Parts: sequence; structure tokens; C-alpha cells
Amino acid sequence: MATVNELADLRAGIDECDAQLVALLAKRNSITEKIGAIKQQIGAPLHAPDREADLLAARRQEAVNQGVNPELVEDILRRMMREAYQNQQGNLACSAPQLSPIVIVGGKGAMGQLFAQQFIRSGYEVRILDKEQQAESEAILAGAKLVLVSVPINALEQVVAALPKLDEDCLLVDITSVKQKPLNALMAAHNGPVVGLHPMFGPDISHWVKQTVVVCEGRNHEVAQGLLAQLQVWGCQVVEMEAKKHDEAMQIIQVMRHLTTFVYGQFLAKQSHTLAELRSCSSPIYQLELMMVGRLFAQSPELYSDIMLAQFDDVENLLANYQATFADTLEKLKTGNKAALIEGFADAKEYFSDATAHFLTQSRSLLNKANDAKVLD
Amino acid sequence: MATVNELADLRAGIDECDAQLVALLAKRNSITEKIGAIKQQIGAPLHAPDREADLLAARRQEAVNQGVNPELVEDILRRMMREAYQNQQGNLACSAPQLSPIVIVGGKGAMGQLFAQQFIRSGYEVRILDKEQQAESEAILAGAKLVLVSVPINALEQVVAALPKLDEDCLLVDITSVKQKPLNALMAAHNGPVVGLHPMFGPDISHWVKQTVVVCEGRNHEVAQGLLAQLQVWGCQVVEMEAKKHDEAMQIIQVMRHLTTFVYGQFLAKQSHTLAELRSCSSPIYQLELMMVGRLFAQSPELYSDIMLAQFDDVENLLANYQATFADTLEKLKTGNKAALIEGFADAKEYFSDATAHFLTQSRSLLNKANDAKVLD
Repeated sequence: MATVNELADLRAGIDECDAQLVALLAKRNSITEKIGAIKQQIGAPLHAPDREADLLAARRQEAVNQGVNPELVEDILRRMMREAYQNQQGNLACSAPQLSPIVIVGGKGAMGQLFAQQFIRSGYEVRILDKEQQAESEAILAGAKLVLVSVPINALEQVVAALPKLDEDCLLVDITSVKQKPLNALMAAHNGPVVGLHPMFGPDISHWVKQTVVVCEGRNHEVAQGLLAQLQVWGCQVVEMEAKKHDEAMQIIQVMRHLTTFVYGQFLAKQSHTLAELRSCSSPIYQLELMMVGRLFAQSPELYSDIMLAQFDDVENLLANYQATFADTLEKLKTGNKAALIEGFADAKEYFSDATAHFLTQSRSLLNKANDAKVLD
Repeated sequence: MATVNELADLRAGIDECDAQLVALLAKRNSITEKIGAIKQQIGAPLHAPDREADLLAARRQEAVNQGVNPELVEDILRRMMREAYQNQQGNLACSAPQLSPIVIVGGKGAMGQLFAQQFIRSGYEVRILDKEQQAESEAILAGAKLVLVSVPINALEQVVAALPKLDEDCLLVDITSVKQKPLNALMAAHNGPVVGLHPMFGPDISHWVKQTVVVCEGRNHEVAQGLLAQLQVWGCQVVEMEAKKHDEAMQIIQVMRHLTTFVYGQFLAKQSHTLAELRSCSSPIYQLELMMVGRLFAQSPELYSDIMLAQFDDVENLLANYQATFADTLEKLKTGNKAALIEGFADAKEYFSDATAHFLTQSRSLLNKANDAKVLD
């Protein structure tokens, strides 16, 4: 009984610690909000990598001095920083007032809304041009200095071709996930400055800090610098890349991975175990694999089939290569050709090179997080 | 200049908050260590799901009251709990003293060491029987009440068959990742109680709490209950399952996923973009995909090829099914058969059912974490 009381006392001590934590977080929030306001005032980027690194290093050292695991401290601080970035989204510095007013074509879509909101927070005048505003498009576009087209990839060429004539100094931008064809369509429709962006994130991000945006040069690239500076103020990592190189890389990364995931999901649907059965005996790593496959099927079958069909011509050869590699591996297994299997493994190992060790560490940390969040039945 | 000074002052305020955080973590650690000692004393399980849920709910409410994001508080508390579980590994309650002394056959291997350490922490007498101790095996096994075999799957049958006769009341256990054949081998070698475990984790876990262990009944299952109680004290989630069902599920989850990942890695190695190029324009989700593929190739090509060859006979049909699904999808794409694509998508969507939405939320949180940890060049 004494120990049970003792346990209750100790748990009360934990609750007291945790209440102090909540108070500390409230205090930290109020300070980071003030920092955000100053950053807006002086036009400083939201993300200050040097300050971030210094802060982490100092607190890690302090952790070591106090016998606390420095990894624990770093994990918590990074989570707090995410919160700070999120809280600082409200008021953002304006890097390129010369690009205002801005028109978002397709501004009612999820990505269009995301960009519109972010430009507004940075003090730009933002006008929305979506299907319902079609009749007033000339008035809406009059005097626009930046027109950002955010429409589904299948509609892009048609929408751009139908735009009224823009001012010569207006910057025309698109954000589709391929870049060669859209850039050509933009350049054909407009004689002024043009740039192609591919934001490597979806509309559900909690903040823009450290998010990657690929930038493909179109025309009069100097005019686009203001927009790129604005992205950097938001904390984005801007990666400049040729449109052709970008599109080829996307075929490998996105399209092929989508298709193989699609096949794997169908394969799972055909075998005889329920998802619950498979999950009940999955390690965190296979839980994660199942999650990565399953999340794809949260989308609309109709929309997804359209995307796959639109991309197929570009990746037909890649798909054939994948299929050949699969058949080849099957043959090696059937004939028990261990030497050939080792060779194939070694090729892939060499391709991933030093990254494999880094991937192992990083995935371990993610798997730990997945395990932390497990809710047991 | 005034604002720059102001920024410095505010950052000093953040540093002060964060220093208080480190002190708070040190204090919390000292309390959770004491709680661990009491749990050991009263034989309570490390993982108290009700207490965990209550604690989270109370602090979430407090967060709301103080205008702090409750998700932030929960994320940080879960990370702190992981630390507490890790710190409480040092001294663990003993649930089944009747199973001592314990012999770990293959006790020098990574999993063998993990189990040996955990049994020792729980107060069991643990003896190691590895290759070097072969000559003394009879002496080491004399009087053992639990013999846990932790050897590579290819060696299991031979090692078990070569064991000296065990006491009739000794519990014989294996931990290989298939269960039917090993259980048969165990039952053939020993007339007493037998149980098969499949720990759904590797030797690099930071703690045992919430880790899944699949249990397949062998013989005299009542004797195994002490071991299962011990696993539960360590915080494990024990899932009882028929050996046949387990093995079939493993073929779907582990073997097939391994093989398709292996093929994908080889496919990546053959195309023309470097890993750095692909990573520079990957969204967090594709970074994660690349990570999940790349981590496989951190292993030894030799060892990995052996594993694939050993499993091939069992999954030859599954592989053929996967290949047929792939060819089928390719054909639908080639002929532009949208209706058939939608049908395939809908089948998989139905299979994943409600889980897709959950997977989306969960993966979003993991992707946020991956983005938090990004180190920019």
C-alpha cells in the first residue's frame, strides 16, 4: 500500500512537470510571435538556419551537462520550431511589392488557395480568377503584375491560351508537376516574363519553412527573382533546374512509384488476408509500408486514373524496364542463381551508396515515432 | 537598429525557455526512474495505457485552456514517454521466476543478446550457449526451465535437433520469422512445453513498450503463460495466432514487399539520374519512399540473397500474381482502358477501406517530422 501511495505521489510530480511544460510552451509561443512580427518588419526570412543550428547545439550541450539525452532535447526543440514557424505564418514580410497586384487563376482550388493566402499574408493585393469569374477576366487581370496559374494539368494549355492579353511586364507563372509543356504554353500565350514552379508539397502543409520549390527558367528570369526572394522569405528551399531534367526526374520518382504502388495495392486486394490480419502481425516498418500504399487509395479512382493515363506515354519505356527487372529477378530466384542476385543487390547498393546508412538512421527515428503514436486495442 | 536589439532580446528569452525545458526534462527523468523502480517492486507492467491516455487528455485540455496547440503538447509528451520507457528498461519486474534459469541458444547474436539482456534486467539467471560453448552444452542446459533458440532460420532445424535432452518441464521457444516448420522441429526435439514467438522488431529498438510479438501455440501452452506475462510486463503487445496463418501473412507482408523493393532498387540503379538529383526534387513523401527502398541495401548482399532464396519456394505463386497484376495494369494503360483502371483502383480502395483516411493522417504527421529534421545545404 505504501508503494501504491508513493506511485500516486510520483505521478502527481509528473503531472506537475507536464503542466509546467504547457506553461513554458505558452510563453515560448508568445515570444516567437513577437519574433515573427520583427522578421516581417525587417523583411528577414522566416527560416534562419544558422540560428536554428546554434540553438540546437547549445541546448544539446546543456542536456549533456544535466545528464539528459541530447536526442530527446533536439527532437522536442524541432517540434517546437515547427510550431513557431506555423505561428509566424500570420504576418509575413513582402519581398517584391513590384509584383502586386497578383491574380491567382484557379484560385478556388486547394493549391490556389494556399498561394493566395500566403501572398495576402505578405501584404500583396490578391485577386481570384476562377470559373465563376470568367466573364470579368479582363477586369480582374487589368494591371496584374504577377499571374499564377493553378489549374489541373489537363486544363492548363486551354486555360492559358484563353487568357486575355497581359501587360508586357507581367510575370506569368504556373505550378503544375511537369514543366516542359506548361512552360511552352505559357511562353506561347505571353510575350513577357515567364517562370515555372513545381512546389514539392501538397495543400495540407502546416508551414512553408524548408519546403522545396523547383524553379524552371522561362523568359526574362530577372523579373522572377522577386518571386523567388518571396519564396525564400517564406522559408522555402528554392532549387533551380532545367525543365527537361525536372520532368525526367519526376517520371522516375513520382510516376513510377505511383504506378508500382497502384499495382501493389491491387495485388493486396486480391490475396486472402484482411488488412486487419496483416496489420496485427506487422512490424513498424511494414506498418509504414502498408500506410504508404494505402494512403494512395484515399484519392478519387476517376481522378487518379486520369493522372495515370496522362502520364503513361512518358513512362512506357520505364515501365517496360521495371517489368524486365522484375522478370529477371524472378528468373534468378527460380534458377537459384545466387551470384547474379548478389550482383543485382550490389548494383543497387552502389547506387544508394552512403545514403543507405543515413536512410537507416532516419527511418529508425520515424519508426520510433510511429511506435510512440501506436494506440493499442 | 532598435529592432535588431529587440530581436536579440527575444531570442535570449527563447534560450531561457529552452534552458528551462532541459531542466524540466532532467527533473521528469528522475521521477520516471523512481516510478520504474516501484513498477519493478510491485510487478506492474511498464506500459500503463490508461494512465497514458489520462495524462495525454489532461494536458491536452490544459493546452487548450492556455491557448497552446494540443497536438504540439501530445507530440512532445509522447516523445517524453518514449524516453521514460527507455530509462525504465534498467530494472524490470520478474513475472515468471519458475522459468529461471534461462538458456539462450545463439546468445551471441544481436537478437539473442537483446533477449538475454532483457531477461537479466528482470532478474532471471541467464546462460549463453553459442558456438564456442558447444562442448559444454550439457552442463549449460542442465536444469534449464526455458530454452530460447535465437539462430538464423537456415540453421534452426539442425541446432534444435542437436540439443541434448531437456528436462520434461523445460519450455522450448524459438523466435524465427516463420513459425510452422520451426515449431515442428521444436516439437520433434522435445516432449515438453513448446511455444513459437515472432518478435515484430529488430535488435535496434530503443525500448520494448508497444512492440508486437506474435505467439504461436506449440505444446502445453499453459507453461508458456509465464513467458507471455513477462512480455507484457515489458510492455509488449502479444498477438496469438495460428502458425499457418502467421506464415501466410508474413509471405504477403515481408517477403513480397522485400522482393518488390529489391526490384525497385535495381530499377533505380539502372536509370540515368543520380540519387542526389532525384532527392533534390523530391517531396517529403518521395524522400520517404526513397528512404524505404534505400535502407534495404544497407544490408549484406550475400546474406540478403540467401534470405530471398530461402523464401522463394513459398512465394513463387504470389510473385507470379504480382507480375500478372503488373502486366494487366500496363495493358489497361496501353489501351487507355479507363473503366478497367477505375475498377482496379476501386478494388484496392475497398480493401484498404477506412484505413486510407487514417493512413493519410498518420503519414502526414510522419512527413512533418521528416521535414522538421531536414538539414538544408
